Amino acid sequence: MTSELSFIAALRRIAMHPAARGLADDAAVLSLGGEALVLTHDVLVEGVHYLASQDPADVAWKLVATNMSDLAAKGAEPIGVLLGYTLQRDDDERFLAGLAEALAHYRAPLLGGDTVSGAPAQVLGLTAIGRATYRPVPSRSGARIGDALYVSGPLGAAMLGYEALRDGAGDTLAYRRPRALLGEGRALAPLVSAMMDVSDGLLLDAARLAHASDVTLAIESSTVPITTPEPRRYEALRWGDDYQLLFTAPASAALPVKAHRIGEVLAPGPAPLLLDGAPLSEADGLGYEHR
Amino acid sequence: MTSELSFIAALRRIAMHPAARGLADDAAVLSLGGEALVLTHDVLVEGVHYLASQDPADVAWKLVATNMSDLAAKGAEPIGVLLGYTLQRDDDERFLAGLAEALAHYRAPLLGGDTVSGAPAQVLGLTAIGRATYRPVPSRSGARIGDALYVSGPLGAAMLGYEALRDGAGDTLAYRRPRALLGEGRALAPLVSAMMDVSDGLLLDAARLAHASDVTLAIESSTVPITTPEPRRYEALRWGDDYQLLFTAPASAALPVKAHRIGEVLAPGPAPLLLDGAPLSEADGLGYEHR
Repeated sequence: MTSELSFIAALRRIAMHPAARGLADDAAVLSLGGEALVLTHDVLVEGVHYLASQDPADVAWKLVATNMSDLAAKGAEPIGVLLGYTLQRDDDERFLAGLAEALAHYRAPLLGGDTVSGAPAQVLGLTAIGRATYRPVPSRSGARIGDALYVSGPLGAAMLGYEALRDGAGDTLAYRRPRALLGEGRALAPLVSAMMDVSDGLLLDAARLAHASDVTLAIESSTVPITTPEPRRYEALRWGDDYQLLFTAPASAALPVKAHRIGEVLAPGPAPLLLDGAPLSEADGLGYEHR
Repeated sequence: MTSELSFIAALRRIAMHPAARGLADDAAVLSLGGEALVLTHDVLVEGVHYLASQDPADVAWKLVATNMSDLAAKGAEPIGVLLGYTLQRDDDERFLAGLAEALAHYRAPLLGGDTVSGAPAQVLGLTAIGRATYRPVPSRSGARIGDALYVSGPLGAAMLGYEALRDGAGDTLAYRRPRALLGEGRALAPLVSAMMDVSDGLLLDAARLAHASDVTLAIESSTVPITTPEPRRYEALRWGDDYQLLFTAPASAALPVKAHRIGEVLAPGPAPLLLDGAPLSEADGLGYEHR
């Protein structure tokens, strides 16, 4: 089996277009007719990204939210989505209900797609198309040495929600119905130097931003807002699915939305991250690796 | 299990956008910044749309070609594609080779996408984005009574290619490497009243065009060009995968590309099709129904 990383590396070699950043991570940005179009495609697999026992309405919501979060990180507003749907379950109606709810919430119309039967497990694909509201469109690669590092809100809520769902007790909402921060992304786009959404865990995603920008990010763990009890702080920094925005901006910038300063941008060192002064790299298991 | 048709009908109810024609059939058309964007998404499932034993390079080619053919029917030129890919096979490299070849052939860069592991069968999704070269963008719904009906080239080659592949003897190319007629679509766009690609069989797709345009299409079977021996004419009219263009235009129009006049557009009658004068409807099994 080809590993995902080598497959993506090979894909990148055939992707000659400068917009081809969007392979398994960043959204693609295309100039068209005086607009900048933002394109993202996410796939969720039953049994891998969600359990067959989950409410399909929640799965549909998450499918939409993950893509909307990619648009949020680009300061884009949704134009619409295309759905790839494998029919096979008795509860397609629940999926439709969640899809309708999510699309209405994000004001993202369904433009088209394809439905197929016969797949042995459900595989859901969603393409989201957005229009950038500010250019240059924020990317992961623009962090400047001396900038401050921010996160838009607390981490760990999705982790607690997942555990509540697993255990059948407690508040599951944050895990089941994540919110993509489209408004915040649009407000931040004009002043950030780099931005991305935290989908795979703060540390892992911060390392990606550091690599893309060729910098080291110094994070002070105690300044990261969390919703978990304090003893679980480091777990919260490694859990994904919260869809907060992670961004860098000049330390002097007046932010238009509430955000938490969690660190600073340093010249590139031996590791992409310094957590409380200690070097950390992907080998340290920073978060949820894409499967 | 929800049937595909009822699922699509339900999807259409939540798809409030006027561009939402593209559910399992037509591509979506969106106006953006003075351009018309054409968007299409097709899904291929291993064991349903192709066999696990097929060369993945051919599967990749077909995945690209089916989407490019949707663009061709809109007179659009490709801007790029997004890929949803389930990693799991030992021959991902072959897939990549075919993908690179097809994308180079159609000058459609890979813009992004998502790769995932762990799916029990391969499910491939491709979103193609194109730019309309002529507006109004051709649709299925514009056929006018009195127009002539045309097909761009012969049918049946894919059927023979499939049989050759199945039997291990003969020319398999037309089935393995279908050609999307992008150049022909662009040349025809300014003068057609309705256009679509023949992906599910001439009769079935013609019935769809008839429904969309609220007309009846009279087809003279002997005038349809086929590559099969004469006794298999009616099979050729029901087989898909040839990706020829089916279109209507004023009978007086001088066509910029070679095409075959196969019938005419009549006022709507009791059936969407008249084949050699006999009414035919979908109940007669017109071709390859989407699965």
